[in-house]
Amino acid sequence: MKYASYQYDGVDHVGEVRGTSLIPLGGVSAIGLTTTPDVLRDAPRKTADAVDTADVTLLPVVVDPRKIVCVGLNYMSHITETGRDLPEYPVLFPKYASGLIGAGDALVLPPESKQVDWEGELAVVIGRGGRRIAEEDALDHVLGYTVANDITMRDYQYKTHQFMAGKIWDRTTPLGPYLVTPDEVDVANAGIRTVLNGDTVQDSNLSYLIFSVARLISLISEVTELTPGDVILTGTPGGVGFRMDPKVFLKDGDVVTVSIDGVGELRTRVSVES
Amino acid sequence: MKYASYQYDGVDHVGEVRGTSLIPLGGVSAIGLTTTPDVLRDAPRKTADAVDTADVTLLPVVVDPRKIVCVGLNYMSHITETGRDLPEYPVLFPKYASGLIGAGDALVLPPESKQVDWEGELAVVIGRGGRRIAEEDALDHVLGYTVANDITMRDYQYKTHQFMAGKIWDRTTPLGPYLVTPDEVDVANAGIRTVLNGDTVQDSNLSYLIFSVARLISLISEVTELTPGDVILTGTPGGVGFRMDPKVFLKDGDVVTVSIDGVGELRTRVSVES
Repeated sequence: MKYASYQYDGVDHVGEVRGTSLIPLGGVSAIGLTTTPDVLRDAPRKTADAVDTADVTLLPVVVDPRKIVCVGLNYMSHITETGRDLPEYPVLFPKYASGLIGAGDALVLPPESKQVDWEGELAVVIGRGGRRIAEEDALDHVLGYTVANDITMRDYQYKTHQFMAGKIWDRTTPLGPYLVTPDEVDVANAGIRTVLNGDTVQDSNLSYLIFSVARLISLISEVTELTPGDVILTGTPGGVGFRMDPKVFLKDGDVVTVSIDGVGELRTRVSVES
Repeated sequence: MKYASYQYDGVDHVGEVRGTSLIPLGGVSAIGLTTTPDVLRDAPRKTADAVDTADVTLLPVVVDPRKIVCVGLNYMSHITETGRDLPEYPVLFPKYASGLIGAGDALVLPPESKQVDWEGELAVVIGRGGRRIAEEDALDHVLGYTVANDITMRDYQYKTHQFMAGKIWDRTTPLGPYLVTPDEVDVANAGIRTVLNGDTVQDSNLSYLIFSVARLISLISEVTELTPGDVILTGTPGGVGFRMDPKVFLKDGDVVTVSIDGVGELRTRVSVES
Protein backbone atom coordinates (compact mmCIF):
# COMPACT_ATOMS: atom_id res chain seq x y z
CA MET A 1 0.00 0.00 0.00
CA LYS A 2 1.13 3.54 -0.69
CA TYR A 3 0.38 6.68 1.27
CA ALA A 4 0.92 10.35 0.46
CA SER A 5 1.27 13.34 2.76
CA TYR A 6 -0.29 16.25 0.93
CA GLN A 7 -1.90 19.62 1.21
CA TYR A 8 -5.18 20.31 -0.49
CA ASP A 9 -7.09 23.56 -0.18
CA GLY A 10 -4.73 24.64 2.58
CA VAL A 11 -5.29 21.58 4.75
CA ASP A 12 -2.77 18.78 5.46
CA HIS A 13 -3.87 15.21 4.79
CA VAL A 14 -2.53 11.71 4.63
CA GLY A 15 -4.12 9.69 1.87
CA GLU A 16 -3.94 6.25 0.37
CA VAL A 17 -2.59 6.33 -3.16
CA ARG A 18 -4.73 4.50 -5.71
CA GLY A 19 -3.41 5.10 -9.18
CA THR A 20 -3.58 8.86 -9.61
CA SER A 21 -6.14 9.27 -6.85
CA LEU A 22 -5.52 10.11 -3.21
CA ILE A 23 -8.12 8.87 -0.75
CA PRO A 24 -7.77 10.89 2.48
CA LEU A 25 -7.65 8.98 5.74
CA GLY A 26 -10.13 10.00 8.41
CA GLY A 27 -8.50 11.34 11.55
CA VAL A 28 -4.94 11.27 10.20
CA SER A 29 -3.51 14.60 9.12
CA ALA A 30 0.19 13.74 9.28
CA ILE A 31 2.56 10.80 9.61
CA GLY A 32 4.17 11.02 13.01
CA LEU A 33 4.01 9.92 16.62
CA THR A 34 0.49 8.49 16.41
CA THR A 35 0.69 6.72 13.04
CA THR A 36 1.59 3.15 13.80
CA PRO A 37 1.12 0.68 10.94
CA ASP A 38 -2.29 -0.32 12.35
CA VAL A 39 -3.49 3.26 12.44
CA LEU A 40 -2.74 3.80 8.76
CA ARG A 41 -4.22 0.46 7.78
CA ASP A 42 -7.42 0.83 9.82
CA ALA A 43 -8.15 4.53 9.31
CA PRO A 44 -11.42 5.10 7.45
CA ARG A 45 -10.97 5.89 3.75
CA LYS A 46 -12.90 9.02 2.88
CA THR A 47 -13.51 8.02 -0.71
CA ALA A 48 -15.97 10.87 -1.28
CA ASP A 49 -13.08 13.29 -0.70
CA ALA A 50 -10.70 11.67 -3.18
CA VAL A 51 -8.53 14.08 -5.12
CA ASP A 52 -6.24 13.73 -8.07
CA THR A 53 -2.50 13.71 -7.38
CA ALA A 54 -2.13 16.51 -9.91
CA ASP A 55 -4.32 18.80 -7.82
CA VAL A 56 -2.44 18.60 -4.53
CA THR A 57 0.85 19.82 -3.10
CA LEU A 58 2.86 16.81 -2.02
CA LEU A 59 4.48 17.32 1.36
CA PRO A 60 7.55 15.52 2.67
CA VAL A 61 6.30 12.01 3.55
CA VAL A 62 6.94 12.94 7.17
CA VAL A 63 6.49 16.67 7.56
CA ASP A 64 7.89 17.02 11.07
CA PRO A 65 9.96 14.01 12.15
CA ARG A 66 11.41 14.30 15.62
CA LYS A 67 14.63 12.67 14.47
CA ILE A 68 16.23 12.31 11.08
CA VAL A 69 19.30 10.11 11.36
CA CYS A 70 21.45 9.94 8.25
CA VAL A 71 24.03 7.31 7.44
CA GLY A 72 27.17 7.99 5.45
CA LEU A 73 29.43 5.74 3.43
CA ASN A 74 27.05 2.80 3.56
CA TYR A 75 27.49 1.38 0.05
CA MET A 76 30.43 -0.68 -1.09
CA SER A 77 30.83 1.47 -4.21
CA HIS A 78 30.63 4.85 -2.45
CA ILE A 79 33.21 3.61 0.05
CA THR A 80 35.54 2.73 -2.81
CA GLU A 81 34.95 6.13 -4.41
CA THR A 82 35.93 8.03 -1.29
CA GLY A 83 38.99 5.88 -0.61
CA ARG A 84 37.96 4.92 2.91
CA ASP A 85 38.15 1.62 4.79
CA LEU A 86 35.00 -0.41 5.40
CA PRO A 87 33.45 0.88 8.61
CA GLU A 88 32.65 -1.33 11.61
CA TYR A 89 29.99 1.08 12.81
CA PRO A 90 27.71 3.31 10.73
CA VAL A 91 28.74 6.89 10.13
CA LEU A 92 25.88 8.96 11.54
CA PHE A 93 25.00 12.60 10.94
CA PRO A 94 21.79 14.62 11.29
CA LYS A 95 19.26 16.51 9.29
CA TYR A 96 16.41 18.59 10.67
CA ALA A 97 12.72 18.56 9.81
CA SER A 98 13.21 22.11 8.51
CA GLY A 99 15.54 20.65 5.87
CA LEU A 100 12.80 18.69 4.14
CA ILE A 101 10.80 19.50 1.01
CA GLY A 102 8.11 17.56 -0.82
CA ALA A 103 8.40 15.67 -4.06
CA GLY A 104 6.90 18.49 -6.07
CA ASP A 105 8.94 21.26 -4.51
CA ALA A 106 11.85 22.88 -6.29
CA LEU A 107 15.28 22.66 -4.71
CA VAL A 108 16.20 26.33 -4.39
CA LEU A 109 19.98 26.68 -4.30
CA PRO A 110 21.12 28.87 -1.40
CA PRO A 111 23.43 31.66 -2.54
CA GLU A 112 26.12 30.79 0.04
CA SER A 113 27.04 27.36 -1.32
CA LYS A 114 28.78 26.79 -4.63
CA GLN A 115 28.85 23.00 -4.28
CA VAL A 116 25.35 21.60 -3.97
CA ASP A 117 25.43 17.87 -4.67
CA TRP A 118 22.97 14.98 -4.90
CA GLU A 119 22.83 11.75 -2.89
CA GLY A 120 20.06 9.32 -3.83
CA GLU A 121 18.98 7.23 -0.83
CA LEU A 122 16.45 4.83 0.59
CA ALA A 123 14.61 6.43 3.51
CA VAL A 124 13.09 4.36 6.30
CA VAL A 125 10.11 5.68 8.27
CA ILE A 126 9.63 4.25 11.77
CA GLY A 127 6.14 3.07 12.68
CA ARG A 128 6.70 1.42 16.05
CA GLY A 129 9.02 3.05 18.52
CA GLY A 130 11.61 1.40 20.68
CA ARG A 131 14.95 1.53 22.41
CA ARG A 132 17.60 -1.17 22.04
CA ILE A 133 15.62 -2.91 19.30
CA ALA A 134 17.06 -6.32 18.42
CA GLU A 135 18.20 -6.64 14.83
CA GLU A 136 15.91 -9.63 14.26
CA ASP A 137 12.86 -7.59 15.36
CA ALA A 138 13.88 -4.36 13.69
CA LEU A 139 11.90 -4.61 10.47
CA ASP A 140 8.70 -4.90 12.53
CA HIS A 141 9.33 -1.29 13.55
CA VAL A 142 9.23 0.01 9.96
CA LEU A 143 6.14 1.91 8.84
CA GLY A 144 7.38 2.07 5.28
CA TYR A 145 9.96 3.29 2.83
CA THR A 146 10.36 6.29 0.63
CA VAL A 147 13.00 7.98 -1.49
CA ALA A 148 15.29 10.77 -0.33
CA ASN A 149 17.78 13.00 -2.03
CA ASP A 150 20.27 13.75 0.73
CA ILE A 151 21.28 17.07 -0.83
CA THR A 152 24.65 18.15 0.52
CA MET A 153 26.53 21.42 0.40
CA ARG A 154 30.02 19.97 -0.08
CA ASP A 155 31.84 23.23 0.64
CA TYR A 156 30.08 23.36 4.04
CA GLN A 157 30.32 19.61 4.67
CA TYR A 158 34.08 19.84 4.50
CA LYS A 159 34.58 23.14 6.33
CA THR A 160 35.42 20.95 9.32
CA HIS A 161 35.71 17.21 9.94
CA GLN A 162 32.04 17.06 10.98
CA PHE A 163 29.56 16.77 8.09
CA MET A 164 26.63 18.50 9.80
CA ALA A 165 27.09 22.03 8.43
CA GLY A 166 26.72 20.70 4.88
CA LYS A 167 23.66 18.62 5.67
CA ILE A 168 21.17 20.79 7.56
CA TRP A 169 20.32 23.55 5.08
CA ASP A 170 16.66 24.43 5.30
CA ARG A 171 14.28 23.21 2.61
CA THR A 172 16.83 21.36 0.52
CA THR A 173 16.16 17.64 1.10
CA PRO A 174 13.35 16.10 -0.99
CA LEU A 175 11.56 13.21 0.71
CA GLY A 176 8.91 11.31 -1.23
CA PRO A 177 6.86 11.03 -3.26
CA TYR A 178 5.06 8.33 -1.27
CA LEU A 179 5.36 6.09 1.75
CA VAL A 180 5.37 2.47 0.57
CA THR A 181 4.55 -0.27 3.05
CA PRO A 182 7.24 -2.91 3.66
CA ASP A 183 5.32 -5.72 1.92
CA GLU A 184 5.86 -3.94 -1.41
CA VAL A 185 9.62 -3.41 -1.09
CA ASP A 186 12.48 -5.91 -1.17
CA VAL A 187 15.04 -3.96 0.85
CA ALA A 188 17.54 -6.76 0.41
CA ASN A 189 17.54 -6.43 -3.37
CA ALA A 190 16.21 -3.34 -5.12
CA GLY A 191 17.87 -1.16 -7.71
CA ILE A 192 18.57 2.45 -6.80
CA ARG A 193 19.58 5.07 -9.32
CA THR A 194 19.97 8.80 -9.74
CA VAL A 195 19.53 10.50 -13.09
CA LEU A 196 20.73 14.06 -13.70
CA ASN A 197 19.24 15.74 -16.78
CA GLY A 198 18.82 12.34 -18.41
CA ASP A 199 22.25 10.96 -17.52
CA THR A 200 22.46 8.14 -15.00
CA VAL A 201 24.94 9.21 -12.33
CA GLN A 202 24.23 6.70 -9.56
CA ASP A 203 23.25 3.09 -10.27
CA SER A 204 23.44 0.55 -7.49
CA ASN A 205 21.36 -1.88 -5.45
CA LEU A 206 20.21 -2.00 -1.85
CA SER A 207 21.97 -5.37 -1.63
CA TYR A 208 25.24 -3.40 -1.48
CA LEU A 209 24.28 -1.72 1.80
CA ILE A 210 27.04 -2.36 4.32
CA PHE A 211 24.67 -1.82 7.26
CA SER A 212 21.24 -3.22 6.45
CA VAL A 213 18.01 -1.46 7.39
CA ALA A 214 17.51 -3.86 10.29
CA ARG A 215 21.06 -3.39 11.54
CA LEU A 216 20.77 0.40 11.35
CA ILE A 217 17.54 0.41 13.36
CA SER A 218 19.14 -1.82 15.96
CA LEU A 219 22.32 0.24 16.28
CA ILE A 220 20.66 3.66 16.26
CA SER A 221 18.04 2.59 18.80
CA GLU A 222 20.82 1.46 21.10
CA VAL A 223 21.78 5.09 21.68
CA THR A 224 18.44 6.88 21.30
CA GLU A 225 14.81 5.87 21.30
CA LEU A 226 13.17 5.74 17.90
CA THR A 227 9.57 6.92 17.75
CA PRO A 228 6.95 6.73 15.02
CA GLY A 229 7.67 9.21 12.27
CA ASP A 230 11.42 9.17 12.76
CA VAL A 231 13.33 8.89 9.50
CA ILE A 232 16.57 7.10 8.69
CA LEU A 233 18.41 7.96 5.49
CA THR A 234 20.42 4.87 4.69
CA GLY A 235 23.30 6.34 2.71
CA THR A 236 24.11 6.88 -0.93
CA PRO A 237 25.92 4.73 -3.48
CA GLY A 238 28.86 5.87 -5.62
CA GLY A 239 28.33 8.54 -8.24
CA VAL A 240 28.05 11.83 -6.42
CA GLY A 241 29.08 14.97 -8.29
CA PHE A 242 31.85 15.87 -5.87
CA ARG A 243 33.76 12.73 -6.81
CA MET A 244 33.53 13.26 -10.57
CA ASP A 245 36.44 14.66 -12.54
CA PRO A 246 35.77 17.48 -13.09
CA LYS A 247 33.39 17.86 -10.15
CA VAL A 248 29.74 18.44 -11.03
CA PHE A 249 27.32 20.43 -8.90
CA LEU A 250 23.64 21.23 -9.22
CA LYS A 251 22.69 24.40 -11.06
CA ASP A 252 19.62 26.35 -12.04
CA GLY A 253 17.38 24.34 -14.34
CA ASP A 254 18.78 20.90 -13.52
CA VAL A 255 16.40 18.03 -12.97
CA VAL A 256 17.61 15.29 -10.65
CA THR A 257 15.62 12.09 -10.22
CA VAL A 258 16.21 9.38 -7.64
CA SER A 259 14.36 6.11 -8.11
CA ILE A 260 14.27 2.88 -6.14
CA ASP A 261 12.58 -0.28 -7.42
CA GLY A 262 9.27 -0.76 -5.68
CA VAL A 263 9.58 2.48 -3.73
CA GLY A 264 9.16 5.19 -6.30
CA GLU A 265 10.67 8.03 -8.22
CA LEU A 266 11.59 11.36 -6.65
CA ARG A 267 12.03 14.05 -9.27
CA THR A 268 13.36 17.45 -8.25
CA ARG A 269 13.78 20.61 -10.27
CA VAL A 270 16.64 22.86 -9.26
CA SER A 271 16.30 26.65 -9.23
CA VAL A 272 18.06 29.66 -7.79
CA GLU A 273 16.80 32.08 -5.15
CA SER A 274 15.14 35.02 -6.83
CA MET B 1 16.13 37.65 35.88
CA LYS B 2 16.14 33.87 36.28
CA TYR B 3 13.55 31.36 35.17
CA ALA B 4 13.09 27.70 35.94
CA SER B 5 11.28 24.97 34.02
CA TYR B 6 9.85 22.63 36.61
CA GLN B 7 7.24 20.08 37.37
CA TYR B 8 5.08 20.41 40.46
CA ASP B 9 2.25 18.07 41.35
CA GLY B 10 2.54 16.46 37.91
CA VAL B 11 2.16 19.71 35.97
CA ASP B 12 4.86 21.50 33.95
CA HIS B 13 5.49 25.17 34.73
CA VAL B 14 7.88 27.98 33.96
CA GLY B 15 8.53 30.18 36.94
CA GLU B 16 10.55 33.20 37.89
CA VAL B 17 13.25 32.34 40.41
CA ARG B 18 13.28 34.57 43.49
CA GLY B 19 15.75 33.25 46.01
CA THR B 20 14.52 29.76 46.81
CA SER B 21 11.00 30.49 45.55
CA LEU B 22 9.57 29.80 42.13
CA ILE B 23 6.74 32.08 41.02
CA PRO B 24 4.86 30.36 38.19
CA LEU B 25 4.12 32.39 35.07
CA GLY B 26 0.52 32.51 33.93
CA GLY B 27 -0.04 30.97 30.52
CA VAL B 28 3.52 29.70 30.08
CA SER B 29 4.04 25.98 30.67
CA ALA B 30 7.30 25.53 28.77
CA ILE B 31 10.10 27.49 27.13
CA GLY B 32 9.78 27.02 23.41
CA LEU B 33 8.39 28.42 20.19
CA THR B 34 6.09 30.96 21.87
CA THR B 35 8.40 32.24 24.59
CA THR B 36 10.04 35.32 23.21
CA PRO B 37 11.80 37.58 25.74
CA ASP B 38 8.70 39.80 25.96
CA VAL B 39 6.44 36.86 26.74
CA LEU B 40 8.56 35.79 29.70
CA ARG B 41 8.93 39.34 30.94
CA ASP B 42 5.26 40.27 30.65
CA ALA B 43 3.61 37.02 31.75
CA PRO B 44 1.57 37.47 34.95
CA ARG B 45 3.38 36.24 38.08
CA LYS B 46 1.09 33.91 40.02
CA THR B 47 2.58 34.74 43.39
CA ALA B 48 -0.16 32.90 45.25
CA ASP B 49 1.12 29.68 43.63
CA ALA B 50 4.77 30.16 44.58
CA VAL B 51 6.59 26.98 45.53
CA ASP B 52 9.95 26.26 47.08
CA THR B 53 12.69 25.05 44.74
CA ALA B 54 13.20 22.09 47.07
CA ASP B 55 9.66 20.88 46.41
CA VAL B 56 9.75 20.70 42.60
CA THR B 57 11.39 18.55 39.96
CA LEU B 58 13.58 20.77 37.81
CA LEU B 59 13.18 20.03 34.13
CA PRO B 60 15.73 20.76 31.42
CA VAL B 61 15.51 24.54 30.90
CA VAL B 62 14.07 23.77 27.48
CA VAL B 63 12.24 20.47 27.65
CA ASP B 64 11.68 19.97 23.95
CA PRO B 65 13.91 22.16 21.79
CA ARG B 66 13.42 21.69 18.07
CA LYS B 67 17.15 22.01 17.48
CA ILE B 68 20.14 21.49 19.73
CA VAL B 69 23.28 22.51 17.89
CA CYS B 70 26.52 21.65 19.64
CA VAL B 71 29.90 23.16 18.96
CA GLY B 72 33.14 21.27 19.33
CA LEU B 73 36.70 22.44 19.92
CA ASN B 74 35.71 26.02 20.65
CA TYR B 75 38.17 26.90 23.44
CA MET B 76 41.80 27.71 22.93
CA SER B 77 42.80 25.32 25.71
CA HIS B 78 40.67 22.38 24.53
CA ILE B 79 42.08 22.86 21.04
CA THR B 80 45.60 22.63 22.43
CA GLU B 81 44.67 19.52 24.40
CA THR B 82 43.40 17.68 21.34
CA GLY B 83 46.32 18.72 19.18
CA ARG B 84 44.19 20.26 16.43
CA ASP B 85 44.64 23.44 14.40
CA LEU B 86 42.47 26.47 15.12
CA PRO B 87 39.31 26.07 13.06
CA GLU B 88 38.04 28.66 10.59
CA TYR B 89 34.49 27.42 10.96
CA PRO B 90 32.79 25.93 14.02
CA VAL B 91 32.69 22.16 14.39
CA LEU B 92 28.97 21.32 14.63
CA PHE B 93 27.29 18.19 15.87
CA PRO B 94 23.80 17.44 17.20
CA LYS B 95 21.99 16.37 20.29
CA TYR B 96 18.30 15.53 20.54
CA ALA B 97 15.68 16.75 22.99
CA SER B 98 15.44 13.15 24.22
CA GLY B 99 19.05 13.47 25.38
CA LEU B 100 18.28 16.12 27.99
CA ILE B 101 17.79 15.78 31.75
CA GLY B 102 17.09 18.37 34.42
CA ALA B 103 19.46 19.76 36.99
CA GLY B 104 18.16 17.46 39.71
CA ASP B 105 18.18 14.30 37.64
CA ALA B 106 20.81 11.62 38.02
CA LEU B 107 22.99 10.78 35.04
CA VAL B 108 22.33 7.07 34.64
CA LEU B 109 25.27 5.45 32.87
CA PRO B 110 24.13 3.26 29.97
CA PRO B 111 25.59 -0.24 30.16
CA GLU B 112 26.92 -0.14 26.59
CA SER B 113 29.46 2.64 27.06
CA LYS B 114 32.59 2.28 29.16
CA GLN B 115 33.80 5.81 28.50
CA VAL B 116 31.26 8.38 29.70
CA ASP B 117 32.94 11.77 29.97
CA TRP B 118 32.03 15.31 31.04
CA GLU B 119 32.11 18.54 29.05
CA GLY B 120 31.08 21.68 30.93
CA GLU B 121 29.56 24.27 28.57
CA LEU B 122 27.67 27.51 28.28
CA ALA B 123 24.28 26.90 26.66
CA VAL B 124 22.47 29.60 24.71
CA VAL B 125 18.67 29.56 24.43
CA ILE B 126 17.18 31.35 21.45
CA GLY B 127 14.30 33.75 22.12
CA ARG B 128 13.81 35.40 18.74
CA GLY B 129 14.02 33.28 15.62
CA GLY B 130 15.71 34.11 12.39
CA ARG B 131 17.63 32.97 9.35
CA ARG B 132 20.89 34.57 8.25
CA ILE B 133 21.12 36.63 11.41
CA ALA B 134 23.88 39.24 11.23
CA GLU B 135 26.56 38.84 13.89
CA GLU B 136 25.96 42.38 15.16
CA ASP B 137 22.26 41.63 15.75
CA ALA B 138 22.75 38.10 17.05
CA LEU B 139 22.68 38.76 20.79
CA ASP B 140 19.21 40.31 20.38
CA HIS B 141 18.03 36.79 19.52
CA VAL B 142 19.12 35.31 22.84
CA LEU B 143 16.45 34.50 25.41
CA GLY B 144 19.03 33.62 28.01
CA TYR B 145 21.84 31.39 29.10
CA THR B 146 22.14 28.25 31.13
CA VAL B 147 24.70 25.58 31.96
CA ALA B 148 25.08 22.27 30.13
CA ASN B 149 27.14 19.19 30.69
CA ASP B 150 27.67 17.85 27.18
CA ILE B 151 28.06 14.28 28.38
CA THR B 152 29.83 12.22 25.74
CA MET B 153 30.32 8.52 25.26
CA ARG B 154 33.90 8.62 23.97
CA ASP B 155 33.93 5.01 22.79
CA TYR B 156 30.92 5.78 20.61
CA GLN B 157 32.11 9.26 19.61
CA TYR B 158 35.20 7.74 18.06
CA LYS B 159 33.63 4.65 16.50
CA THR B 160 33.72 6.67 13.27
CA HIS B 161 34.97 10.11 12.29
CA GLN B 162 31.53 11.62 13.03
CA PHE B 163 30.90 12.48 16.69
CA MET B 164 27.12 12.02 16.67
CA ALA B 165 26.90 8.44 17.97
CA GLY B 166 28.68 9.50 21.14
CA LYS B 167 26.53 12.57 21.67
CA ILE B 168 22.87 11.56 21.33
CA TRP B 169 22.34 9.06 24.15
CA ASP B 170 18.94 9.52 25.70
CA ARG B 171 18.65 11.26 29.06
CA THR B 172 22.33 11.91 29.58
CA THR B 173 22.79 15.68 29.05
CA PRO B 174 21.97 17.90 32.06
CA LEU B 175 20.71 21.38 31.11
CA GLY B 176 20.07 23.90 33.86
CA PRO B 177 19.41 24.69 36.59
CA TYR B 178 17.95 28.01 35.41
CA LEU B 179 17.61 30.26 32.42
CA VAL B 180 19.40 33.53 33.14
CA THR B 181 18.54 36.59 31.08
CA PRO B 182 21.38 38.19 29.09
CA ASP B 183 21.55 41.30 31.25
CA GLU B 184 22.90 39.18 34.11
CA VAL B 185 25.68 37.43 32.16
CA ASP B 186 28.92 38.77 30.71
CA VAL B 187 29.43 36.25 27.93
CA ALA B 188 32.66 37.97 26.94
CA ASN B 189 34.26 37.33 30.32
CA ALA B 190 32.90 34.75 32.75
CA GLY B 191 34.67 31.91 34.47
CA ILE B 192 33.58 28.36 33.65
CA ARG B 193 34.70 25.34 35.66
CA THR B 194 33.91 21.70 36.17
CA VAL B 195 34.47 19.96 39.48
CA LEU B 196 34.52 16.17 39.80
CA ASN B 197 34.11 14.86 43.33
CA GLY B 198 35.67 18.04 44.67
CA ASP B 199 38.56 18.22 42.21
CA THR B 200 38.56 21.01 39.65
CA VAL B 201 39.02 19.37 36.23
CA GLN B 202 38.04 22.20 33.88
CA ASP B 203 38.78 25.85 34.63
CA SER B 204 38.55 28.40 31.86
CA ASN B 205 36.76 31.56 30.82
CA LEU B 206 34.21 32.38 28.13
CA SER B 207 36.73 34.95 26.86
CA TYR B 208 38.65 31.99 25.40
CA LEU B 209 35.78 31.04 23.07
CA ILE B 210 37.13 30.90 19.53
CA PHE B 211 33.66 31.47 18.04
CA SER B 212 31.68 33.90 20.21
CA VAL B 213 28.00 33.42 20.99
CA ALA B 214 27.11 36.10 18.43
CA ARG B 215 29.28 34.54 15.74
CA LEU B 216 27.83 31.08 16.39
CA ILE B 217 24.26 32.36 16.08
CA SER B 218 25.15 34.12 12.85
CA LEU B 219 26.92 31.13 11.29
CA ILE B 220 24.38 28.51 12.38
CA SER B 221 21.44 30.62 11.22
CA GLU B 222 23.07 30.92 7.81
CA VAL B 223 22.32 27.25 7.17
CA THR B 224 19.15 26.69 9.18
CA GLU B 225 16.52 28.90 10.76
CA LEU B 226 16.77 29.27 14.51
CA THR B 227 13.48 29.42 16.38
CA PRO B 228 12.64 30.25 20.01
CA GLY B 229 13.63 27.44 22.32
CA ASP B 230 16.50 26.23 20.15
CA VAL B 231 19.64 25.55 22.15
CA ILE B 232 23.29 26.05 21.23
CA LEU B 233 25.97 24.32 23.31
CA THR B 234 29.04 26.45 22.82
CA GLY B 235 31.80 23.92 23.39
CA THR B 236 33.95 22.82 26.31
CA PRO B 237 37.34 23.99 27.57
CA GLY B 238 40.32 21.73 28.23
CA GLY B 239 40.19 19.18 31.01
CA VAL B 240 37.97 16.36 29.81
CA GLY B 241 38.59 12.91 31.26
CA PHE B 242 39.45 11.32 27.93
CA ARG B 243 42.55 13.52 27.62
CA MET B 244 43.88 12.77 31.10
CA ASP B 245 46.68 10.29 31.65
CA PRO B 246 45.41 7.84 32.67
CA LYS B 247 41.97 8.56 31.19
CA VAL B 248 39.17 9.20 33.68
CA PHE B 249 35.53 8.37 33.06
CA LEU B 250 32.38 8.84 35.10
CA LYS B 251 31.36 6.05 37.44
CA ASP B 252 28.61 5.22 39.89
CA GLY B 253 28.51 7.67 42.78
CA ASP B 254 30.48 10.47 41.10
CA VAL B 255 29.25 14.03 41.45
CA VAL B 256 30.13 16.37 38.61
CA THR B 257 29.40 20.09 38.86
CA VAL B 258 29.65 22.63 36.07
CA SER B 259 29.47 26.29 37.05
CA ILE B 260 29.61 29.51 35.06
CA ASP B 261 29.90 32.93 36.70
CA GLY B 262 26.55 34.67 36.62
CA VAL B 263 24.80 31.70 35.02
CA GLY B 264 24.70 29.09 37.74
CA GLU B 265 25.85 25.75 38.99
CA LEU B 266 24.74 22.45 37.46
CA ARG B 267 25.37 19.56 39.84
CA THR B 268 24.82 16.02 38.61
CA ARG B 269 24.99 12.76 40.48
CA VAL B 270 26.10 9.73 38.47
CA SER B 271 24.50 6.32 38.92
CA VAL B 272 24.27 3.02 37.09
CA GLU B 273 21.20 1.44 35.56
CA SER B 274 19.57 -0.85 38.07
